[in-house]
Amino acid sequence: MSVSDPTIFELGESEALKRAIAHFKPGSHTLVPSGDDAAVIRSEGKYVVTTDTMVQGRDFRLDLSSARQLGIKAVATNLADVVAMGAKPTAIVVALVVPETTKVSWLEEFAHGLQSGIDSLFPGCEVVGGDLAAGDQVVIAVTAHGELEAEPVLRSGAKVGDQVVVAGTLGRAAAGLDLLLAPDPTLAAAYPEWVAIQLAPNPPLQTGLDLAALATSMLDISDGLSTDAARIAKASGVTLKLRSSALLGYEAVLELAAQSMTARGFAANERDWVLNGGEDHSFLATVPEGTKLPIGCKVIGEVVAQTADPVLLDDQPLLAGGWDSVRS
Amino acid sequence: MSVSDPTIFELGESEALKRAIAHFKPGSHTLVPSGDDAAVIRSEGKYVVTTDTMVQGRDFRLDLSSARQLGIKAVATNLADVVAMGAKPTAIVVALVVPETTKVSWLEEFAHGLQSGIDSLFPGCEVVGGDLAAGDQVVIAVTAHGELEAEPVLRSGAKVGDQVVVAGTLGRAAAGLDLLLAPDPTLAAAYPEWVAIQLAPNPPLQTGLDLAALATSMLDISDGLSTDAARIAKASGVTLKLRSSALLGYEAVLELAAQSMTARGFAANERDWVLNGGEDHSFLATVPEGTKLPIGCKVIGEVVAQTADPVLLDDQPLLAGGWDSVRS
Repeated sequence: MSVSDPTIFELGESEALKRAIAHFKPGSHTLVPSGDDAAVIRSEGKYVVTTDTMVQGRDFRLDLSSARQLGIKAVATNLADVVAMGAKPTAIVVALVVPETTKVSWLEEFAHGLQSGIDSLFPGCEVVGGDLAAGDQVVIAVTAHGELEAEPVLRSGAKVGDQVVVAGTLGRAAAGLDLLLAPDPTLAAAYPEWVAIQLAPNPPLQTGLDLAALATSMLDISDGLSTDAARIAKASGVTLKLRSSALLGYEAVLELAAQSMTARGFAANERDWVLNGGEDHSFLATVPEGTKLPIGCKVIGEVVAQTADPVLLDDQPLLAGGWDSVRS
Repeated sequence: MSVSDPTIFELGESEALKRAIAHFKPGSHTLVPSGDDAAVIRSEGKYVVTTDTMVQGRDFRLDLSSARQLGIKAVATNLADVVAMGAKPTAIVVALVVPETTKVSWLEEFAHGLQSGIDSLFPGCEVVGGDLAAGDQVVIAVTAHGELEAEPVLRSGAKVGDQVVVAGTLGRAAAGLDLLLAPDPTLAAAYPEWVAIQLAPNPPLQTGLDLAALATSMLDISDGLSTDAARIAKASGVTLKLRSSALLGYEAVLELAAQSMTARGFAANERDWVLNGGEDHSFLATVPEGTKLPIGCKVIGEVVAQTADPVLLDDQPLLAGGWDSVRS
């Protein structure tokens, strides 16, 4: 046994879990925390539940993501789904599969990342349970819960005449991924902000909640604007008509990174990042025309009567170019 | 593409998920089912949540378990945790990682198994969400929820003088596993009942709920009687004194299988199965002396003042011989 940093296997599951759990802070909705057969959460009337999985080699690489960044990302992706329903995040459980060679220090850093993600994104939410198992590759399956104070905001409520609104950034995580994967490491080093958003996204959850309170439909953009806009369109029986002029601001901040990549011979396009990159976990919503929007929200189009194409960019069909986690 | 039975990869995640979801029946607590960013569950006051993971090659083998059996087992293990808190199972979400070569028919059989498990164990519970991802080995991470109508039953409430009670079978799943893993296939064929409990456990959830209503402490025996009795003892600050005479009935039904294995040269012992086998997912509880027990419950010992040993069998220390999922 390595005395300074044993593997989880050397230390044993129970002791390793104890060290991980020591990083978690109590939440404001938890009646019975982790440690029994199940946790108990306070809830009045109804709660939301969602689950999302990250698989090593598909959704992340251990040579690119630190354990802390993976913890933050697992929290961000799941809490964004909770907020996209109009619910306040209250509690998460984490199922973690790791190889037997994994060090306890990695597990502790991951746990620290989970709590850091909660602290920065939605304090008061709590890690209320988990499960640790050995396997060939790292798998992180988080289930997140939230409290609804009003009716849930579904994808199916968009109405003709509504405005299409984004809260948060677009394309930055996708730019970060392309920069990271480029064989020239100076590219990622030159644009650390976009790389950071890929590795540890920071979606604006409170702005998302404020927007949800006004929205007729909403989701978090996990697979790219083109794909997720089509989901609202199909669920609502409408067409979302986006304005390319409204996307220029999102593109402008990424233009230099795309140019740097192109100059070194790598394919890159800031519009493609903005239209098809999803991992910023920003929010896409529709609101009635004339709605006074929360600070940080931007109108990018309008809802029109259903056409043959679920999404238009100006007057052209916008094809879904997003991410299918099984096909990737 | 194989026309008759494509892989999930060939068909695409969305379409494969649709086919799986078609196997699920609506639950009685679900306000918004799967399909949006999150599901919405009705809850008055509080709910319980628990998660459990099964990893291919550690917790199951695809050459021994059918997809349907894995679905049933995933439901049984998680609902038993919910019931062990004294809660009625209401909703589960399932994160599933499968290799890219997995056929859609396997996924459908797994979904069918999830619903079959619910139908046979606790009708009215619902699969309200899930996530499907590609990976090197099958990982099944289920998070289960339940509704509490009274205070939760913790592990920490056992009192000196209480009776120690079991609801359900002991040792059968462990016997089934040893039979399955023996190189002589006639052994498993000779005792199909114990093999079936290993592959698709059938814990008595309603009896468990009836017992919970009377219990001062309770858990589901997932790691073996010796290990799980020690958990109650340590959490409650007491010692559990079990009577070997009360375990004879559990051992008697497994005696023949152990003898058959021994006769063919394989190590097997029915007492070891009963004391250290956990996967029947039966319930262990403590109740005040004189409690009228539900049918199907058996007194196997009593709670005494804390000694140096958390569990005694008659007057001897009973060491924890259970299962550590990381070490296995």
